[in-house]
Amino acid sequence: MSFQKNQTHEVKRNKSFEEKAESLKPTLFRHVIEPTNLIDVVENKEKIHNWEAKPLKPANELSEEVLGKGDRVILDFGDHQVGYLQLHIVPVGSPPDAPLHMRLTFGEMPVEMAESFSSYDGWISSSWLQEETIHVDVLPNQLSLPRRYSFRYLKIEVLDTSPKYKVSFKKATVEAVTSADVCKVGSFSHDDPELVEIDRVSIKTLQDCMQDVFEDGPKRDRRLWLGDLRLQALANYSTFKNNDLVKRNLYQFAAVPNQDGQVSANLFNEPFLIPDDTFLYDYSLFFTTTLYDYFQATKDYETLEELWPTAYRQVEIGLKRLDNHGILKDDESWWSFIDWHQDLNKQAPSQAILIYTLRRAISLADTLGKKEEQEKMEKHLKLVLEATIIHLWQEDLGFFVSGENAQVSWATQVWMVLAEVLQPEKNQELLTRLLENKPNIEMNTPYMHHHLVEALLMVDMKKEALDWMKMYWGGMLKEGADTFWELYNPKDKEFSPYGNHLINSYCHAWSCTPTYLLREYL
Amino acid sequence: MSFQKNQTHEVKRNKSFEEKAESLKPTLFRHVIEPTNLIDVVENKEKIHNWEAKPLKPANELSEEVLGKGDRVILDFGDHQVGYLQLHIVPVGSPPDAPLHMRLTFGEMPVEMAESFSSYDGWISSSWLQEETIHVDVLPNQLSLPRRYSFRYLKIEVLDTSPKYKVSFKKATVEAVTSADVCKVGSFSHDDPELVEIDRVSIKTLQDCMQDVFEDGPKRDRRLWLGDLRLQALANYSTFKNNDLVKRNLYQFAAVPNQDGQVSANLFNEPFLIPDDTFLYDYSLFFTTTLYDYFQATKDYETLEELWPTAYRQVEIGLKRLDNHGILKDDESWWSFIDWHQDLNKQAPSQAILIYTLRRAISLADTLGKKEEQEKMEKHLKLVLEATIIHLWQEDLGFFVSGENAQVSWATQVWMVLAEVLQPEKNQELLTRLLENKPNIEMNTPYMHHHLVEALLMVDMKKEALDWMKMYWGGMLKEGADTFWELYNPKDKEFSPYGNHLINSYCHAWSCTPTYLLREYL
Repeated sequence: MSFQKNQTHEVKRNKSFEEKAESLKPTLFRHVIEPTNLIDVVENKEKIHNWEAKPLKPANELSEEVLGKGDRVILDFGDHQVGYLQLHIVPVGSPPDAPLHMRLTFGEMPVEMAESFSSYDGWISSSWLQEETIHVDVLPNQLSLPRRYSFRYLKIEVLDTSPKYKVSFKKATVEAVTSADVCKVGSFSHDDPELVEIDRVSIKTLQDCMQDVFEDGPKRDRRLWLGDLRLQALANYSTFKNNDLVKRNLYQFAAVPNQDGQVSANLFNEPFLIPDDTFLYDYSLFFTTTLYDYFQATKDYETLEELWPTAYRQVEIGLKRLDNHGILKDDESWWSFIDWHQDLNKQAPSQAILIYTLRRAISLADTLGKKEEQEKMEKHLKLVLEATIIHLWQEDLGFFVSGENAQVSWATQVWMVLAEVLQPEKNQELLTRLLENKPNIEMNTPYMHHHLVEALLMVDMKKEALDWMKMYWGGMLKEGADTFWELYNPKDKEFSPYGNHLINSYCHAWSCTPTYLLREYL
Repeated sequence: MSFQKNQTHEVKRNKSFEEKAESLKPTLFRHVIEPTNLIDVVENKEKIHNWEAKPLKPANELSEEVLGKGDRVILDFGDHQVGYLQLHIVPVGSPPDAPLHMRLTFGEMPVEMAESFSSYDGWISSSWLQEETIHVDVLPNQLSLPRRYSFRYLKIEVLDTSPKYKVSFKKATVEAVTSADVCKVGSFSHDDPELVEIDRVSIKTLQDCMQDVFEDGPKRDRRLWLGDLRLQALANYSTFKNNDLVKRNLYQFAAVPNQDGQVSANLFNEPFLIPDDTFLYDYSLFFTTTLYDYFQATKDYETLEELWPTAYRQVEIGLKRLDNHGILKDDESWWSFIDWHQDLNKQAPSQAILIYTLRRAISLADTLGKKEEQEKMEKHLKLVLEATIIHLWQEDLGFFVSGENAQVSWATQVWMVLAEVLQPEKNQELLTRLLENKPNIEMNTPYMHHHLVEALLMVDMKKEALDWMKMYWGGMLKEGADTFWELYNPKDKEFSPYGNHLINSYCHAWSCTPTYLLREYL
């Protein structure tokens, strides 16, 4: 994600929290992976982005290929990988009398092998495109690239050698890294093999996003966003159970709030812990719900106690946006994420997220015996719930509305169900109506689709939930996904909020939740 | 240089010589250099390649420049440098939410800052063009580039940051390296300040080419060529007096001859000592003359004794090309360098170099008391001298001719003088005639111009020698040379034997000889 609004924020650094987070830094698991095939990418209108990876020969024949100026080869590593590339390069012919100059292009998808990155015209930085041009002065060379890449495919183009020699690649390997321990994952069985496959690919997606922190995407942005963390943590409790990584990331957010105590939407870990200057209404509240989920999974009372002030502060800040009627003020001065959707009004879904958060914060206050805070929040919850029904529920439409134009969106209905604003059977009716009426303001990201499926499961609409999951995540599988994507709109498969699909992330944390939904609700 | 003829050669490795060479590996002197100015390059038809470096502001203002996508800055390091770049880069704006992507272009000449390297269309490898595109993941960053560059100018182009931040370069430094000890150089004074300046720039040229070995050019090819070594060694005896470096390089050539005992035209030092598969008639003979010069400078009898068999073997191989008349066979099967000149016939100048070498080899054999070898060579010298007069001297023309078309070239006359084929006064007449008649087959490189000037000095035509030096090397100075160039043709200043002047080397060993000529002959 990327947001351009800048405000002046001061960082209130909590050294002790930062040190605790640092002490929980995971040791990465490392596995050496070899390519499976040499491939070509060919046009195919039936495939996503119109490109298909076509195997040419087994990868063990790579070492026989001799490449001179203008030659290229594409390696397929068989599955999505996050890690470090090593190439063993040898000269063929006379002693190399000039450096080897080559371009390496890493791609999660065939389109990244097929379309030139120089055609990229999106609005976020082209620097995320995974391409390097490299000079190698000494051959033979065991080249180790210092940067980490996220990819399945690697295109090697020899830009030049010299008229006197060419090169061969004797070996190409990736040292794949993750902080996820695959041995910890229990088996999952189901009569429907598609659901088993969806579970497997969800776990692989989570695995590749689990690094020093829960990253949003290993290709881009490679950092810790609260919205992603919340969902990754849930999937993690059902699979890898690396609960210390969740704890570490919670402490990191709590270590660097702004002068008002608000936690940032995302953090940078290098060169040291730095909060982004982006603050999102919903994401700050998710600090509190993520702590709630963490406590449910771990019963780690000590952490709960220590992080409670930060969690409660997010609620206080969230409540401050309420107007006299108990409804969130909607104007140009705030950002709430909800979904990547230009026309989506964020007021009502944010209101629902405030309610969703209040319920969990009240439970935590109760656990901690924070009576005063608990009572305050209970009073607020009552008022906000009433206000929501009075001002945002439209009985004639049978939908909640958002913003001054009374927008009816999928996001609003889904979040109102998750926030349990109506009674359970009314929630079921609402979702049934939603699936029938299909409002125009739809959902664009796996992140938002996750919330729909969880809402359906919550109100016992299991068949609809699984059908949706198979339509959506199963749809990505049918398109050849090795890991689930940041963006997927079945009606507009080229969709990118960034203006160009080359920059999309094709292994993205917020898409990993089916394993959680399947393992927790079935 | 680059030659494309490949033959099958076996390396006869002498481990003991190789170890001796390795034990003489120099420790490099390191100096940190800061830029002097920010510049722009502007079109100017009066300047070489039509480009001029125009100072914009002092380099200490660099740190105030803020560069975003598409911005660039050009640094001028004040003089030619060979070394390693360090950049201290800091972000400006929000925390960097995407890598910095930048292109660094290093240039010895303004043209390299002005013309896109993608326009390069020469026949030798484009991989010598000094350009890197780099991603920097973490900012601030103290970036140290691993490769060595040869340059005065550095262009930094920011290809992308992100909409949320830009960058500043707080510091840019070069760690300049050389194995030349500048403290060893004696002063040189002369009434003519142009000659003093030619001497200074010669020494700087040699200094920047003196690394682990005597390199031909630090930009390209960065390796040890016998033809360059011979001239560098001469300039070195007059200046830096790093005689061990000459000794090291002689042992290196002697360590890896082919199965016939012939030394290669050039050597690679990485990943280990490897002789090129290029063998040049004249260059192999220069092993012997370089050993001769080394002994004159050092009186190092032990080295002379140990390397004599290699030196003598080169003479034997050289003599094998003689036909029944005592003239070198001229056909398609051989390479002799002499000069970069497509139309130059190499027969007669090579014949002269054989004579030049025989004279020195005879002297060495005499020193060593190698009577048999000495007598053999004396007999050959007599025959070859007679044959040269009979078959190559054309009394009516007053010139030596070369090849089946009886070509009259500058190179042939110059080398016949250096080989002392005629008597001293006849040599003077020959050179006077040469300067007057100006045959069409001229000289293209400082390497060949050196031999003309040395020939003039040898026959006491000092005025003509200095005039020529001022016209030629002084001409480069007038064009703004910081170091002397690989190629310079005053009549065709864009000349490149490689098809494009961007790939020419503008600090080249074989151009460093004026300091030797001035200090030894004046």
